[in-house]
Amino acid sequence: MLATIAVFDIVKDDLHRVETRLHDIPLRSEADFELVTEAIGHVLDAGGKRIRPALTLLTGRLYPSDPKKIISLAAAVEMLHTATLVHDDVVDGALLRRGSPTLNARWSPGATILTGDYMFARAADLAAQTGHVRVMQIFARSLMTIVSGELRQLFGDATFRQTREDYFKRIYAKTASMFELATEAAGVLIDATESEILDLRRFGHDLGIAFQIMDDVLDFSGDASQVGKPVGNDLRQGIVTLPVIDYLDAHPADKRVDDLLHHDYHDDDVVLSIVADVRASGAIDRAIDEARNYVRSSQAALLKLPDNEARQAMLAVADYVVARNY
Amino acid sequence: MLATIAVFDIVKDDLHRVETRLHDIPLRSEADFELVTEAIGHVLDAGGKRIRPALTLLTGRLYPSDPKKIISLAAAVEMLHTATLVHDDVVDGALLRRGSPTLNARWSPGATILTGDYMFARAADLAAQTGHVRVMQIFARSLMTIVSGELRQLFGDATFRQTREDYFKRIYAKTASMFELATEAAGVLIDATESEILDLRRFGHDLGIAFQIMDDVLDFSGDASQVGKPVGNDLRQGIVTLPVIDYLDAHPADKRVDDLLHHDYHDDDVVLSIVADVRASGAIDRAIDEARNYVRSSQAALLKLPDNEARQAMLAVADYVVARNY
Repeated sequence: MLATIAVFDIVKDDLHRVETRLHDIPLRSEADFELVTEAIGHVLDAGGKRIRPALTLLTGRLYPSDPKKIISLAAAVEMLHTATLVHDDVVDGALLRRGSPTLNARWSPGATILTGDYMFARAADLAAQTGHVRVMQIFARSLMTIVSGELRQLFGDATFRQTREDYFKRIYAKTASMFELATEAAGVLIDATESEILDLRRFGHDLGIAFQIMDDVLDFSGDASQVGKPVGNDLRQGIVTLPVIDYLDAHPADKRVDDLLHHDYHDDDVVLSIVADVRASGAIDRAIDEARNYVRSSQAALLKLPDNEARQAMLAVADYVVARNY
Repeated sequence: MLATIAVFDIVKDDLHRVETRLHDIPLRSEADFELVTEAIGHVLDAGGKRIRPALTLLTGRLYPSDPKKIISLAAAVEMLHTATLVHDDVVDGALLRRGSPTLNARWSPGATILTGDYMFARAADLAAQTGHVRVMQIFARSLMTIVSGELRQLFGDATFRQTREDYFKRIYAKTASMFELATEAAGVLIDATESEILDLRRFGHDLGIAFQIMDDVLDFSGDASQVGKPVGNDLRQGIVTLPVIDYLDAHPADKRVDDLLHHDYHDDDVVLSIVADVRASGAIDRAIDEARNYVRSSQAALLKLPDNEARQAMLAVADYVVARNY
C-alpha cells in the first residue's frame, strides 16, 4: 500500500503503522459517513512520499522513546499537512494535484471545506495523543504560520515583483514550518535537551527550505508525466519562484513576468518562452546550488546529536532531497 | 465594548479579559494582515452573549484555580465557536448572521476559509496555553463532533423526514458539544474529581440542548428585527426543528413540509402558513417545556458541586436560557 523510499528503510515498519493510524478515521464506524471516510482515504492515498512523518519517526530514533507517541505525532503531522492541501485546493480552485483529481474537483466547496476541517480536528486529536502539551503548542503555532502564509499570498499584491525575502518568507510558511514541526516536536518527545531541540528545529527548517526550492525547480525542468502538472505551472498561477527571481535580477528590463502577473489571461507561448529563458540563464543550477547549501546547513545542525543509525538516515534523507531526479 | 447579561455579573471582569485575549490576534503586529485582523475582530464583535466562555469562567470559580488558564480556555472556546460559524457561513452561502453581513458576504470563499482556519489554529493555541493535555484532547474531540454533525447534515438525505432522534443528534453536535467542552474542560482545570467532571459535562450537555431548542423556537416566534432573521428561516433552508417534528407527529398527512424539502424553490406563503399552523398546534409550548426539562436536568447535575456563588450563578444561567424574551 505504501512504497517507501530507501532512505526511510529503518523506519519502514513504523511508516506502515503511521499509514494505518492515518486511515483509522473515527467516523469510519458510522454508516452515515461512508463518503467522507472514503474521500479522506483517497486524499491520503494521493499523498506523496511521507517525508514529514518519516522525519518524525527518524528523529524519534535518535534517543530511546515511546514508539506509540512518535507514531501518533507522525500521523498528526501528515494529517495536518494533508488537511492544509485540501483547503488549499478549494482556495485555488485546483482540480488536479499530483495528477489526481482533487476533492474539490469532485465535490462542492462546502463538503471539501468540512472534510478539511474534520482532518484538522483529527490531526489535533492525534497530536493530543502524544500526551505532551508542548507538542500541542508547537502544533498550533505551526498551523498559524502555515495559514498566515496562505493569507499573505491571498491578500498580497499579486502584481508586485517579489523579492528573494518575500520568497523565503513564503516557502518558510508553506513548507519549512511543517518540516520544523515534524522534527522539533519529535525532539520534545524524545526528551532531547533544549539545545538539541533547537538543532532539530533548524534541521527541519533548512531541509524544508531546500525541499521547497527543489520542488519549485521541478516546475521548470520536470515533464508533466513525471510531476503530474505541466511545466511553468507556478508562473501560470502567478507564483514567482526562486529561478524567476534570480533570472529577473539579471534581466531587470524583461517585463514579460510583470505582464503575466497583471493579467488573468496568459498566452501559454509567453509562459513557455519565459521558462526557456529562465532555463537558459543558469538560474536553475543556481537555485539547486542554493538548495544544496540549505541541505548542508541542515546536516550541520545534527552534528551534536548522537551518531547513530537514525542520524545517518537523517543525513541521507537530506542528501536525497537534492538528489531527486530532475 | 461588551454588554454582559446580569447572570454573568460575578465573572464580568474576567469576561472583559477574555474579550481582550480574543482580540489579541498574533497577526496583528504585521502590517500585511490588517484586513485579516480587522475581519476577525469584526466577526468576534458580531458574536453573541458569550454564554460559552461565561460558563467556562463560572465553572472556573467552583474551586480555586489559576485564572489565567481559565481565561485562556474561555477564549479558546469562543474562538473555536466563532471559527465554526465562519466556515458554516461559507458552506451555507449565508450572507447575514444576527443581522450583520457575514465575512462570506464581503470576501471570496478562499479568504473566508483561510480566516476560519487561522481562527481554528489560534483556538488550539489558546487551548494549549492552559498547559493541560487533557483539555487539548477534549478540545480536539469536540471539534471532530461539531464537524461530523455538519458533514452529516450536508451528506444526509435532505428530503427525508427527520425523526426526533435525528434532531437531538444534530443539536448535540451543533451546540451541546461546545457547551460540554466549556464546562468539562474547565472541570479539568479546577482539578475537580472524575465524577464532578462528568457532572459538569452533563450540565454543559443538557444546557446546550435546552439552549438550541430555545434558539429553534425563536425561529417560529421571534420577529426579524429582534433576531436578525425572518421567521421560518430554518424551514426555508430545509432545516427541520423540534416544533415541526412535533407538529408532523400530530399531522402525519400534511405533506407541505416534505414538499418544501424536495424543492429548491420555496413559495414564501407556504413557509409562513406552515409556521402559523405549527404555532397554532401548541408545538412551540411543548418544545419550550422540553427545553425546561433539560434545564432542570442540567441544574440537577450540579447538586454535588460546592454550593457557592459560582454554582448559584450557573443555576441562574440555566434559568436564563429558558426565560429569554420570546
